[in-house]
Amino acid sequence: MDTQYFERMESEVRTYSRSFPIVFDRACGAHLWTTDGTQYIDFLAGAGTLNYGHNNPVLKKALMDYIERDGIVHGLDFWTHGKQDFYQTLEELILKPRGLDYKIQLPGPTGTNAVEAAIRLARRITGRSNILTFTNGFHGVTMGALATTGNAKFRDALGVPAIGAQFMPYDGYLGEGVDTLDYVEKALDDKSSGLDRPAAAIVELVQGEGGINAASIEWIKRLAEICKQRDILLIVDDIQAGCGRTGKFFSFEHAGIKPDMVTNSKSLSGYGLPFAMLMMRRDLDKWTPGQYNGTFRGHTLAMVTAAEALRHYWKDDTFEQDVQRKGEVIRERFEMLAGLLSDVGHPAKERGRGMMRGIDVGSGELADEITHGAFQRGLIIETSGQAGEVVKCLCPLTITDDELEQGLTILERSIRSLIE
Amino acid sequence: MDTQYFERMESEVRTYSRSFPIVFDRACGAHLWTTDGTQYIDFLAGAGTLNYGHNNPVLKKALMDYIERDGIVHGLDFWTHGKQDFYQTLEELILKPRGLDYKIQLPGPTGTNAVEAAIRLARRITGRSNILTFTNGFHGVTMGALATTGNAKFRDALGVPAIGAQFMPYDGYLGEGVDTLDYVEKALDDKSSGLDRPAAAIVELVQGEGGINAASIEWIKRLAEICKQRDILLIVDDIQAGCGRTGKFFSFEHAGIKPDMVTNSKSLSGYGLPFAMLMMRRDLDKWTPGQYNGTFRGHTLAMVTAAEALRHYWKDDTFEQDVQRKGEVIRERFEMLAGLLSDVGHPAKERGRGMMRGIDVGSGELADEITHGAFQRGLIIETSGQAGEVVKCLCPLTITDDELEQGLTILERSIRSLIE
Amino acid sequence: MDTQYFERMESEVRTYSRSFPIVFDRACGAHLWTTDGTQYIDFLAGAGTLNYGHNNPVLKKALMDYIERDGIVHGLDFWTHGKQDFYQTLEELILKPRGLDYKIQLPGPTGTNAVEAAIRLARRITGRSNILTFTNGFHGVTMGALATTGNAKFRDALGVPAIGAQFMPYDGYLGEGVDTLDYVEKALDDKSSGLDRPAAAIVELVQGEGGINAASIEWIKRLAEICKQRDILLIVDDIQAGCGRTGKFFSFEHAGIKPDMVTNSKSLSGYGLPFAMLMMRRDLDKWTPGQYNGTFRGHTLAMVTAAEALRHYWKDDTFEQDVQRKGEVIRERFEMLAGLLSDVGHPAKERGRGMMRGIDVGSGELADEITHGAFQRGLIIETSGQAGEVVKCLCPLTITDDELEQGLTILERSIRSLIE
Amino acid sequence: MDTQYFERMESEVRTYSRSFPIVFDRACGAHLWTTDGTQYIDFLAGAGTLNYGHNNPVLKKALMDYIERDGIVHGLDFWTHGKQDFYQTLEELILKPRGLDYKIQLPGPTGTNAVEAAIRLARRITGRSNILTFTNGFHGVTMGALATTGNAKFRDALGVPAIGAQFMPYDGYLGEGVDTLDYVEKALDDKSSGLDRPAAAIVELVQGEGGINAASIEWIKRLAEICKQRDILLIVDDIQAGCGRTGKFFSFEHAGIKPDMVTNSKSLSGYGLPFAMLMMRRDLDKWTPGQYNGTFRGHTLAMVTAAEALRHYWKDDTFEQDVQRKGEVIRERFEMLAGLLSDVGHPAKERGRGMMRGIDVGSGELADEITHGAFQRGLIIETSGQAGEVVKCLCPLTITDDELEQGLTILERSIRSLIE
Repeated sequence: MDTQYFERMESEVRTYSRSFPIVFDRACGAHLWTTDGTQYIDFLAGAGTLNYGHNNPVLKKALMDYIERDGIVHGLDFWTHGKQDFYQTLEELILKPRGLDYKIQLPGPTGTNAVEAAIRLARRITGRSNILTFTNGFHGVTMGALATTGNAKFRDALGVPAIGAQFMPYDGYLGEGVDTLDYVEKALDDKSSGLDRPAAAIVELVQGEGGINAASIEWIKRLAEICKQRDILLIVDDIQAGCGRTGKFFSFEHAGIKPDMVTNSKSLSGYGLPFAMLMMRRDLDKWTPGQYNGTFRGHTLAMVTAAEALRHYWKDDTFEQDVQRKGEVIRERFEMLAGLLSDVGHPAKERGRGMMRGIDVGSGELADEITHGAFQRGLIIETSGQAGEVVKCLCPLTITDDELEQGLTILERSIRSLIE
Repeated sequence: MDTQYFERMESEVRTYSRSFPIVFDRACGAHLWTTDGTQYIDFLAGAGTLNYGHNNPVLKKALMDYIERDGIVHGLDFWTHGKQDFYQTLEELILKPRGLDYKIQLPGPTGTNAVEAAIRLARRITGRSNILTFTNGFHGVTMGALATTGNAKFRDALGVPAIGAQFMPYDGYLGEGVDTLDYVEKALDDKSSGLDRPAAAIVELVQGEGGINAASIEWIKRLAEICKQRDILLIVDDIQAGCGRTGKFFSFEHAGIKPDMVTNSKSLSGYGLPFAMLMMRRDLDKWTPGQYNGTFRGHTLAMVTAAEALRHYWKDDTFEQDVQRKGEVIRERFEMLAGLLSDVGHPAKERGRGMMRGIDVGSGELADEITHGAFQRGLIIETSGQAGEVVKCLCPLTITDDELEQGLTILERSIRSLIE
Repeated sequence: MDTQYFERMESEVRTYSRSFPIVFDRACGAHLWTTDGTQYIDFLAGAGTLNYGHNNPVLKKALMDYIERDGIVHGLDFWTHGKQDFYQTLEELILKPRGLDYKIQLPGPTGTNAVEAAIRLARRITGRSNILTFTNGFHGVTMGALATTGNAKFRDALGVPAIGAQFMPYDGYLGEGVDTLDYVEKALDDKSSGLDRPAAAIVELVQGEGGINAASIEWIKRLAEICKQRDILLIVDDIQAGCGRTGKFFSFEHAGIKPDMVTNSKSLSGYGLPFAMLMMRRDLDKWTPGQYNGTFRGHTLAMVTAAEALRHYWKDDTFEQDVQRKGEVIRERFEMLAGLLSDVGHPAKERGRGMMRGIDVGSGELADEITHGAFQRGLIIETSGQAGEVVKCLCPLTITDDELEQGLTILERSIRSLIE
Repeated sequence: MDTQYFERMESEVRTYSRSFPIVFDRACGAHLWTTDGTQYIDFLAGAGTLNYGHNNPVLKKALMDYIERDGIVHGLDFWTHGKQDFYQTLEELILKPRGLDYKIQLPGPTGTNAVEAAIRLARRITGRSNILTFTNGFHGVTMGALATTGNAKFRDALGVPAIGAQFMPYDGYLGEGVDTLDYVEKALDDKSSGLDRPAAAIVELVQGEGGINAASIEWIKRLAEICKQRDILLIVDDIQAGCGRTGKFFSFEHAGIKPDMVTNSKSLSGYGLPFAMLMMRRDLDKWTPGQYNGTFRGHTLAMVTAAEALRHYWKDDTFEQDVQRKGEVIRERFEMLAGLLSDVGHPAKERGRGMMRGIDVGSGELADEITHGAFQRGLIIETSGQAGEVVKCLCPLTITDDELEQGLTILERSIRSLIE
C-alpha cells in the first residue's frame, strides 16, 4: 500500500489516516477491508454516520435500482419523486407516530449546513442574534456553526472571532451537586450578566465529540422549560445522536420533549451519503424564498437510501428494542473495563446512552494507547473528549451479537495488555 | 403530480420549485422527465453541476461497479483506494500537464466548505484576517464564505454582520474606461483607505450567480500581479467556472496565471454527487492535523465518478476543443438574440466565456418572462445577476449539437413571442 | 426652574435628571444647591468621581492659579510642565511606596478609553483576541469596552454583537459554597469549553454598577494566580474603586497583588474633571507611536488637580485611615438598616468595602422607593445592581462625621417610613 | 528640560512629543512657551481644538468666575444651570438662525463618544447595522467609531476586526472625471454588491486627518440626496471642521444641507476642555433612558466656556467673515508655496476650505522636513494624510494678521531652505 503518495499529495490537515495509516478498499456491515485484504471490525462507523453498517444490502439494492433507472441524482431543490418518497416516509413512520408537526428544510448535505440554517432562522424569528450553546458542544466548523462549537483547535484556526454565540456549562460541568441550569437561569434573568438574550439554545442531548456526555433526563426537561418560559427557541442537534443511536430515533424522545427545531445528518441517508435536514415547528417556517441555498441540497441518492432505511428499520419498534438491548451489553462491558482500569490506579468511568457509549479513562495518552492496541488487533475505534480521554464506541447499530462480542473482546485485550 | 404535499411539508425557503412547479423523476444527458413523462431540455444543469450531463452513462457504469463490489462509500478522511485513484488521475491528467504543483484538501462535500477552508488557511499563513472580495461575487452561504458573497438576501438573513472580508469593484463595475484595479491598488497602498491589508483575494474569473460576468484577461493578470507584489494570496474560486465550463479545465488557464489556491466543486464529481476540493500551492500547506473537519469529506462515490470523468474527458484536448466550438455557437446566437431585443427598445448584451453564457436583458421581469416562456415550451433555463436580469445558459458541455439547437430555438421563440 | 426647556432640548437618553428632576447650580464638599438655593447632601458624588468632594478648596486654588497664569490647558500629548508634575507626584507618593513599576498612558479623558487601550495592548502583547470578563462587570460603553460590560441595556443598543470578550461568573455568582474560579480554571484548561484562550482578564475588585459586589481577598488572589500560571494578563479596572474609595489608594492593595495593568479615571483628577489613565507593567509597553490617540489626552487642568490631590491626601496614611474608619461607620449603619428590612420581610444585606457600600434590598422597586424618599428629605443617593436593587453610598471620602451622620439619618428615615 | 523623565515614565504610544521634544508650560492665543521661556507660534492649535486660541481671555474670565463661585463642575447628566445656559445659547445663536431643529445629547466629553452614540442611534432607528463611511475618514479610535475610521495603524492595533461599517471612495478618490457617488449609488441599488444597506452614512465634509480633503459642494449635495432617497441617515462629523473652521459655524452650511445628525467636539468648549455633542433631528431621538452613558457627560466647565464662545463670536457674522478673509490669505500663500515646490520637481497642491488648509507636497518625508524646519524656526505645524504628505494649517481662527504672516513666513522659509 503506497501511503507515501497520500503524504505527498494530501494536505497536512488529514487526521484519521494518522491513527490508521493504511489504505482501505471495501466495507460491509461492521467490517472494513484494506487493499491487501486485511479485515477490521469497525467501532467508529463513520463517526456515527453508519448506524446501519457499511454498504447495507437493503439500502444498496434501492440505491442501485434508482441509479440504474436514471432517477434524478442531482436535483438542486427541484421537487422530485425521490424527495417526495423521503418526505412521506419520514412523515408516516417517524413524525406522525411521535406527534411531531415539523416542516422540512434540506439546507445542503452536511450537518454544519443544517446548524447554520437553524441559527439563522432562530435569529430571523426572534430578532435576536445570540445563540446559547454549551461547553464541549460540537455543531460543525463552518463559521456560523463554529461559533457554537467549543473546540479550540477549530476556533483558533478561524482567524477572526467566532461571533453570535455564548457558552454555558453543560450538565455535570460544574461537578456533582451543582445544577448548571441554576447558573443558566440566573444569567438569563440577570440584566447585567453579559449573557445576551438568546434567540435559541442549541444542544446535543448526548455530546459525541465532547466526550459521550449524556445530559440527564431532568436536565433536558428543565432546559426545555427554561427556554419555553423565556421565548427562547430550543434547537436539538441530533446529527450524531439521532437515527436510533441512543435507542430511540431521536435522542430527545427519552425526555419526552418536542424541540422547536431539530438538525439531522450523519446516519440520515443510512448509506453514508452526504445528507442533512433541518426540521422546524410548522409555525416557525419564516424563511422567504431562497434565503438559504446550496448546490447539493437536492442530493437525491441520499433521499432514496434514507427512505429505504426508514421503511426497513423504523416501521415498528423491533430495531429500537434491539439497539437498547445491545446498548446494555456495551454498557455492562464498559463498566467492567472502567472497573479494571480504576482498580490499577487509572480512575475510569463508563458514560453514554443507548449504543453511544464511552469509557473516560482520564487521559488522552492512555486512551490513545488503548485504541492503538485495539487497531493492532483488528479493531477500528477512536477517542473523543476535550483531551481525547474517552474511548468511544459508535459501532453500527446493526452489528451482530457475535461481531459486537469480538470487538469488545479486542478492546478488553488491548486494555488488559496495558495494565497487566 | 401532488405538489400540495410539497407545499405543506417543505420550508418556504424553497426556490427552483417556484419557477418549475412540477415533479421530476428521471434524467439523462441534457434531458429531464417529470413523473408523468413530460420531457424537458436542461439549460440549467444543476446550476453548473452537470457539465457531463445527467447520469452520464460512462460515469454511471463506474459508479455502479464500485457500489456493486462494496467499495468504501463513507470513508471519513481515511486513505482509500478510491481516493488514491482520484488523486493520481487528477495529478496525471490535470495538474502535471498544466505545471501545477498543488496539494489537495477535501474539506467536506460542498463548495462553501472549500471556501471556508481556503479563507482560514490564508489567514493562518499570513497572520492577517481580511479577505478581499468583489462586487457580485458568490462564494457560498455558510457564514465564513458568506462574508465574501455579495448577495443581500443571504447577508441579511445572517442576523449578525458577516465579518472578515471587504468588497472591491469587479472588472467593469465602474463602467467603461475605468480599470477597477486602479482603485484596488490605490486602496491597498493607502494607509488610511479603510481597506485592511488582506490575507487573500478571492475571485471568480467568470461570475456565475453575479450575472455571467467574465473578467478580461488583462484584468485577471493584473489582479494576480497586484496580489503577488503585496504578498496577498490569490484564491480562484472555480466552483462554477471550473471543470471545463469556460473552455479550459480551469478558468484561469485563459490568463496563464497560477493561483495560490483553487476551490472546486459542482461538476467535480461529474455525476452531480456532493464533492468539493481545495488545492493549495505545496508550500502553503500550513494546516496542522484536524484543524478543519467534516463528516462527509470522504464521500468516495464522488471520487470514483470524478476520476472516471477525468479519464474519459480530459486525457487529451478533444473535449476542450468541442466546448470552445459550442461556446461560439451559443455566443453567436446570444448576440443575435441580444440584437433582437435591443432593436425593440430592450437594450441587451451577450456575455460570458466558453459555455458559460448569458444575455443581460436589462430587467429581472423581462428575464423572468423569457425563462417562463421557455419553460412552457420545454426548456429549463434560469436567470442570474443582482436583479435576475441575465438569462443564463449552463447546459451540459456534452450536449449534442441537435439538442443545443433545439434549446436555443426554444429560447429564441420565447423571446420572439414577447417582442413580436 | 424651567425643566420643560430641558425636556424639549435634551435627548430622551438622559437618566439622572429623571430621578432628580431639578436644576442644580452650585456645589461644595458633600453639598449641592439648586438654582433656588435648596441644599442637598450628596451620597452619589459623581458616581464615584468626587472622592474629595465637590469643588474641593485645596484643588480649587491650584486650578485657579494654573488657569490664571495661562498654564497649558489643552496639550494634545505634548510634554508639559503640568504633566511632568503629575507623573512625578504619582511616582513618588503612590507607585514607589507600593513597589509598583508602571509606565503611564493617558489615552483620553474617559475611563472607557483606558479600558479600550488596555484591551488592545493585551491583544498586541499576547497575539490573542479574547478578553475574560465577569458577570455584572461594568467597564464602559464604547464598543470595545462594552464587550466586557454585562449590562443588557447598553449591549442591546449596540446594534451589532459586541465582540472580543467572554463572561465568567464573578465571585459569589453561583451561590454559597461554589468557588466560581473552579469553573474558570476548568474552562481555561479544557480544550473544548468554548472559552477561547484569553489575552487578559479584566476585573473590578469591587463591582460598582454591578451592585457593590466585593470579591473576597482569596478569590482575588486566586484569580491573579490563575492568570499568572497561564500567561494571561490581569487588568484591574480601578476606575470606580480606586483613588481611596475602598480604604486603600488602589483596590488591589487589600489582596497584595500587582496587576499587569490598571485603569483609573473618575476621581483621578480629584475635581471631577475628565481624566483617565492606563498604567502597565514596564515590560508590557509594546505600543508603537500613535497606535492609540484622542484629542483630549492632554487635558492638563485635570493633571494639575490630580497632582494636588495626591500631595494633599496621599503623602501619608492619615487619609486612608480616616476612610477606613468612616467605612466602618457606614457598614455598621447599613447592617442595622438591612436588619430592619429583613425583620419586616424584605431580606436585605449590607455589602462592599471601605466607603464603597450598599444595601441589597432585594428589589429595584423597593430601592427606588428608598432613594426617592431620601431625595424628598434632602439626600441624593442612587441604586445599582442588575435590577437596581442595591442602595449604594458613594459619598465623598472627605465628608465630615456630622454630614455623614445627617445623610445616614435621612436614609434611615426613608427606610423606616416605608416599613413602619 | 528633563525629557528623559518623560521617556522613562510615559508609554511608547506618545506621538506629538516625538515631533516637538520639548516641554511646554504656558500658552496664550496663537503662542506657546516652553518651560525655559522659548516662544512658538501655533499652527496646530490642538489639532483643531483651539479655534479661539489658547486660554482665550474672554472665555478665561467666564471660566474663572464660574469656578470661583463654586458652580457645579461635575454634573453627571443632572440638569444644571450651566447646561441650560449652553443649550439656550446654542439654540438662539446657532440652531434657530440656521433653521435647525435638533435635540442634543452630551454623550461623554470626547468626539469618539459622539460618533459611537450617533452610530448606535442610527442602527436603532433603522434596524440596520451597517454604516457607510469613506476612504481617509477619521471618526475616532474607540472600537465602534474605529470601524468608520480608515487608518491602518489604529485598525491593526484593534486585534479583532472592526465591524459594522463599510468604506466607499470619498470625493476625488478615483481621480479626475470619476464621480465616486456613481459607484456608491450603483452599489447601494445593486442587490449583490456586497454593500449592506446602511443605517447611515458618516462623513467629514473636509477630511482633517485624511489630508485636508474638501469634498466639492456638488458631491455633498448629491450624497445628501442619495441618502434621503434611500432612507439612509446622514451623519456629518463636524468634530474638526465645525465651530467656524471652514468659514461657517458648521461645515455643511456651505452646501445648504441639513444633516440628520451632527457630531461636534474639539473646539466646541472653546477653551480646549473635553466636550462633545451629538445633535439629532427632533424626530430621530429614539433613545430610551440611559442607553448611552459615561461619567463625564456633564463636564460643566466646558459648557460655560462653550456658551461664552458662542456669545462672543457668533452673535453676528463678523467673525465668520474674518475667518473667510484669513482663509483666503492662507489659500493664496499655500498656492504660491505649492507652485514653488512644483517648479523644482516636487508636484504640490493647495487644498482645503476656510482656515482648514493644507499643501499636499507628495511625500511624507518632504512634509516632515518642512515641518521640522518650521519648528526649528519657531513654528508648530503638523502633517496629515495617509502618508503624512500634507502640511496642514489649523492655526487659531482668532490669530492676528501679523501673527498669521509671521507663521506663514516661517513656513515659506522652511520650504525655501529645502529647495534652494
